[in-house]
Amino acid sequence: MTNILFAAGPELWADYETPLRRALDATGLDYTLGCDAAPETVDYIVYAPGSKLQDFAPYTRLKAVMNLWAGVEKITGNPTLTAPLTRMVDDEGLTQGMVEYVTGHVLRHHLGMDAHIVNPEHAWEPNVPPLSRERPVTVLGLGALGQACAGMLAHLGFPVTGWSRTEKQVERVTCFHGDDGLSRALADAQIVVLLLPDTPATRNLLDADRLARLPWGAVIVNPGRGPLIDDDALLAALDAGQIAHATLDTFRTEPLPADHPFWAHPKVTVTPHIASETRVDSAARVIAANIRRGEDGEPLLHLVDRDAGY
Amino acid sequence: MTNILFAAGPELWADYETPLRRALDATGLDYTLGCDAAPETVDYIVYAPGSKLQDFAPYTRLKAVMNLWAGVEKITGNPTLTAPLTRMVDDEGLTQGMVEYVTGHVLRHHLGMDAHIVNPEHAWEPNVPPLSRERPVTVLGLGALGQACAGMLAHLGFPVTGWSRTEKQVERVTCFHGDDGLSRALADAQIVVLLLPDTPATRNLLDADRLARLPWGAVIVNPGRGPLIDDDALLAALDAGQIAHATLDTFRTEPLPADHPFWAHPKVTVTPHIASETRVDSAARVIAANIRRGEDGEPLLHLVDRDAGY
Repeated sequence: MTNILFAAGPELWADYETPLRRALDATGLDYTLGCDAAPETVDYIVYAPGSKLQDFAPYTRLKAVMNLWAGVEKITGNPTLTAPLTRMVDDEGLTQGMVEYVTGHVLRHHLGMDAHIVNPEHAWEPNVPPLSRERPVTVLGLGALGQACAGMLAHLGFPVTGWSRTEKQVERVTCFHGDDGLSRALADAQIVVLLLPDTPATRNLLDADRLARLPWGAVIVNPGRGPLIDDDALLAALDAGQIAHATLDTFRTEPLPADHPFWAHPKVTVTPHIASETRVDSAARVIAANIRRGEDGEPLLHLVDRDAGY
Repeated sequence: MTNILFAAGPELWADYETPLRRALDATGLDYTLGCDAAPETVDYIVYAPGSKLQDFAPYTRLKAVMNLWAGVEKITGNPTLTAPLTRMVDDEGLTQGMVEYVTGHVLRHHLGMDAHIVNPEHAWEPNVPPLSRERPVTVLGLGALGQACAGMLAHLGFPVTGWSRTEKQVERVTCFHGDDGLSRALADAQIVVLLLPDTPATRNLLDADRLARLPWGAVIVNPGRGPLIDDDALLAALDAGQIAHATLDTFRTEPLPADHPFWAHPKVTVTPHIASETRVDSAARVIAANIRRGEDGEPLLHLVDRDAGY
């Protein structure tokens, strides 16, 4: 018998119970699933960062904790968690949603849509935008999300540069890595998309110095994590004109506080952390498949490297 | 010697002379190219719809007229033109530009971007949009532009339906044709993209009756031709809520007159005929390659069917 504790909270339980049971049934496992269980009986915990469960010490036979979201920064530092931790990599739902958001907002900035959506003077100014092949885009972060977005942008014709901490190769994407590579990845980027995890190494990655390395008038799209950008440096760069616009989906504090200057800034678009979300049905299948792997003695997919923080 | 008359006007001549000479030189043809020539010496005319040249009768040895744009509705009715007429099909430039415009605006509506771009109340409402696979899109017109746009939307995951006057098959696109097919193509379309030519058969294609066949709250994107839509019927459908939004790039009169109700309508986005434009370098190569075909006795590409009107 495989005992699974759903510790992601009652609201998510209402959404996930049926899809999870359906997905687990399909694996053929003999299992129990519920929101309550004696800790020493639990094999797997389905988790979300906001969960009340913070002390994993009593879960003495725990085989893995499975996070429902891609972001794990609120759990990797928990010293009581020694069992393997997996992130959500939900290609059908979460990754696809991110591809749609990133492609949409890159095209929005590329095409200069805002000038037509808000045009109180009714100006008819037929300035045809450049073609995608004339618009270099850089994607910071080449994990599952970054690779999928970079690939779609390349398919649309954009010259895409990618950057990651460690060396990676992605088809149709010019890849750089490490500190030296970051300067090169930023040098020509007319649009920069941030899809890095939140780790001590990525916090304030886009600071005043790095913002200044971008071409004048570059645009930033951040559906990754709020702390990747130094907010004050970004505001200064927007005011100076160095950065033409920032479309931000993630923030240090969410919801974004009413008095935060991003709200009223004419060069900032705030989207309310909607770039991508785990989709219930496909996420339930990913969790069930990973539990089945664990029970069959196969290596778990999407394991978090606790030292790297993602 | 092949004599080519550039009759698209002095402004375009300034843009096109060098690219055309470069492209013609590359074909190896022995040619002359200029804005003036004795009519009876001219083999090919490079043309634009606004040209002063309207009487083709004196051009007694004319082999073909090559239109610089995709739209030919202003020339197909000219009774003095009996030589073959070609449209511009510029995959590298015009088609690519249209794919970017259509993909961008479909994603804009799909993602509900406008609510974030214009958000004076600073509302934080994290409603995650559906995934593309849950958003049926219909493309009316399956010529070079329609097929390219439908293909890109399918690649992004949208269920795409296409409609054309005559039967066509397009990979990954559910194709309908003819009058009966049009009703079926409209029935489920949450977003409709118009990429039909302007002909007597397509004028007012989207009239009150056909607008009413769309699902409640459908969105229209028209980078095709203004007369495809009955303006008054569209305004009524927008006011009723039947149509949630219309993004229009083409109009019966351009520039769109200052007093036209589209300008101030809250559910209409006007873009100033920028969805796609012939790009000089690639268009010059297309024209030169077609002249080379004509001189070598090969069939011309992109011939207009004068009866069908496109």
